[in-house]
Amino acid sequence: MYLSTYSTMSCKFTLQPQMVQASLIVQKEGVGYCTKVPRNVNMAKLRNGYLFPEISVREFQHLEKYPNAKLISLGIGDTTEPLPDNIALSMANYAHGLSTAEGYSGYGAEQGNKALRKAIAETLYKHVPVKDTEVFVSDGAQCDITRVMLLLGSNLTIAVQDPSFPAYIDSSVIIGQAGDFGDEVGKYYNIEYMKCGPENNFFPDLTSTSKTDIIFFCSPNNPTGHAATRNQLEHLVEFARDNGSIIIFDSAYAGYITDDSPRSIFEIPGAREVAIEISSFSKFSGFTGVRLGWTVVPEELLFSNGFPVINDFNRIMCTCFNGASNIAQVGGLASLSPEGFQAVRSLIDYYKENAKILINTFNSFGVKVYGGTNAPYVWAHFPGRKSWDVFAEILDKTHITTVPGSGFGPGGEEYLRISAFGHRESILEASKRLKNLFSKAE
Amino acid sequence: MYLSTYSTMSCKFTLQPQMVQASLIVQKEGVGYCTKVPRNVNMAKLRNGYLFPEISVREFQHLEKYPNAKLISLGIGDTTEPLPDNIALSMANYAHGLSTAEGYSGYGAEQGNKALRKAIAETLYKHVPVKDTEVFVSDGAQCDITRVMLLLGSNLTIAVQDPSFPAYIDSSVIIGQAGDFGDEVGKYYNIEYMKCGPENNFFPDLTSTSKTDIIFFCSPNNPTGHAATRNQLEHLVEFARDNGSIIIFDSAYAGYITDDSPRSIFEIPGAREVAIEISSFSKFSGFTGVRLGWTVVPEELLFSNGFPVINDFNRIMCTCFNGASNIAQVGGLASLSPEGFQAVRSLIDYYKENAKILINTFNSFGVKVYGGTNAPYVWAHFPGRKSWDVFAEILDKTHITTVPGSGFGPGGEEYLRISAFGHRESILEASKRLKNLFSKAE
Repeated sequence: MYLSTYSTMSCKFTLQPQMVQASLIVQKEGVGYCTKVPRNVNMAKLRNGYLFPEISVREFQHLEKYPNAKLISLGIGDTTEPLPDNIALSMANYAHGLSTAEGYSGYGAEQGNKALRKAIAETLYKHVPVKDTEVFVSDGAQCDITRVMLLLGSNLTIAVQDPSFPAYIDSSVIIGQAGDFGDEVGKYYNIEYMKCGPENNFFPDLTSTSKTDIIFFCSPNNPTGHAATRNQLEHLVEFARDNGSIIIFDSAYAGYITDDSPRSIFEIPGAREVAIEISSFSKFSGFTGVRLGWTVVPEELLFSNGFPVINDFNRIMCTCFNGASNIAQVGGLASLSPEGFQAVRSLIDYYKENAKILINTFNSFGVKVYGGTNAPYVWAHFPGRKSWDVFAEILDKTHITTVPGSGFGPGGEEYLRISAFGHRESILEASKRLKNLFSKAE
Repeated sequence: MYLSTYSTMSCKFTLQPQMVQASLIVQKEGVGYCTKVPRNVNMAKLRNGYLFPEISVREFQHLEKYPNAKLISLGIGDTTEPLPDNIALSMANYAHGLSTAEGYSGYGAEQGNKALRKAIAETLYKHVPVKDTEVFVSDGAQCDITRVMLLLGSNLTIAVQDPSFPAYIDSSVIIGQAGDFGDEVGKYYNIEYMKCGPENNFFPDLTSTSKTDIIFFCSPNNPTGHAATRNQLEHLVEFARDNGSIIIFDSAYAGYITDDSPRSIFEIPGAREVAIEISSFSKFSGFTGVRLGWTVVPEELLFSNGFPVINDFNRIMCTCFNGASNIAQVGGLASLSPEGFQAVRSLIDYYKENAKILINTFNSFGVKVYGGTNAPYVWAHFPGRKSWDVFAEILDKTHITTVPGSGFGPGGEEYLRISAFGHRESILEASKRLKNLFSKAE
């Protein structure tokens, strides 16, 4: 009946190739019904696929070509080792308890359970001025990057380390801060790229860095593995204060620091008035699949009109989020118990031993590497070569996936990021294959 | 050292009263360092606190006044009954398995585990045209509302049912679609409020509804409890198709439908080209704390330029989200097994029996109620009275929290939403107290 009254709104459409779970949706063309809703111009500005799904597609295609290949992934930084028993057990007990009247719980506080916020403040910020009420528990750092962008809005300028984790730029593009992409420069016009490489000890030359509203800074850095020194972070905080900028500090890999590099931006005097810190249990407790993170917004951080940023962030968490999974939060709390903390440190040591093996491997055939000592990532330099080419060569000849450095920005060209997450036997096997390839090549 | 070089940027600030975990941050004034980052104008347009935290504050204040009161919450719609054993056990086993080499898993697909997407498509959309690849698993409907807004962007017009769940409007304000709030009308100027009350059988008069890009529609409705009829939804789809609009259909309470009202917008022919459906395990499986939901974006849904909406939504999920907790997903899958599904249906029947008790209670003293038969909410009418006044009177005299209808929009004035979530003994006790109050009053 009413179908006959349909207006005959039709349009030509082209389905773009798009990655869904490591398989391509084939490009289609046709004529069909189109709504009158315009595509979001910000979404149209995003370049290609998000880096990591793109690498999954490459792995998938490789396995189609070599169905018997024993693929080793040193690509996506994904934890591989089982959780410490007491952490897994705490979640198991809690989950089972949800079937009892005493153990059941519904909605928790949007900001996270009080006990977990307290444990984060008291354990991970033991000698650092962070209050439990300033800790907002989340389902992971990547999600909080977007929520912080939502909080800040589109009319701001941003700076990022180059290279850097792609979610900073991509979420800025989605919120509308990035401007157009310049193919000739490989950059978004409205983003300030702060080159961080071995030539400047992975810290930008601030005298030539434009003032921006927001400065994303990740330490230990993903992808370079460099942990900023105290002196470097003091300069960063000073720079932000001079310009009235807000630093969004990503400390997701802070657990991997073993020297005296700061584990939190809030170790630096003056940071509470200019910084937000985003962090995660993913690489700390092996919670990549469990999903748990947190963000610290200090009370002293104020917008230009004196309004506290924490108030708006609290509103974002209450409106756009509804709390992290109660089961995951129990696991986070167990990770911060004395027993859990010790077990988690052993896990981290395991991955760092992997990193050491990888560093030695690359050194053995003369490829210069950075990182890996305060981070689970090794940053290998292949001077004069395109990083996607090196990625493709290694994948093709050794069945090992890595991440091409240029996926993290133009400053990553000539580099590969090699993840130290993996079973020891895989790392040793990868080491053998790499030595075989690169020793031959010489 | 570098501290002495601080620029002396100082400003006057006023900390607004803000709710954090049911306690007020006291209003403060002072002079301190302010960044130069302007507050997001969209955040400044949000009105007061988000409704539900505001109610928590009222509860908190009430308990300060009456420390011995036995408070019954029929306010926030939060599940109270233990999870079915097989669902809790599946999560417990999975969580414990994370401590073993065979049981451990890291990052899952951003779109959700294949098995769960398939189970959602095959169980909940059994006779409805929805493919598993169109199902995106999330950490809950509220989070997906914001992600859909991010996807669509700020340059769109939206319509909402009036009254409606506040997250639609609030997330639209945050993304920048709402315009200014007009105190004299109690509405945002750029939002089309579609009045839905008993006078129009809770379905808007579409002949007088302005064309908008986006139409939020929730059925069974929160707060009114009305499940739209097939005929109503056919008209809605026809209206969207005529205007080229996209319907964002919220079916979070679909599990409570027992008559032949559609459980999904995709039961309506033609909807696949004009609708997105957001849904949730929260009220279906009692997962309010576990956090699990999903969104369906059909392949045929195209922007005006022919670009598929699903491609952009996939990108949003990969960039701004990182998958729902693997433990929660196992629980979702268990809820859709034959045993789990039956157990979940019993849970729903329990809450619906509560709703019946509440309907009878209000009827007994002559207060007209709606909803409650296909939804866990009862919508009670108090003609001529302000809903916050009735809320306050009931709280003060019976120690029962409800939700004032005006919190859901101007169309909710004179109404209260009463939640049927609760232990049976609380519902019976609430019934007694309400009868006592309102019978006396007559």
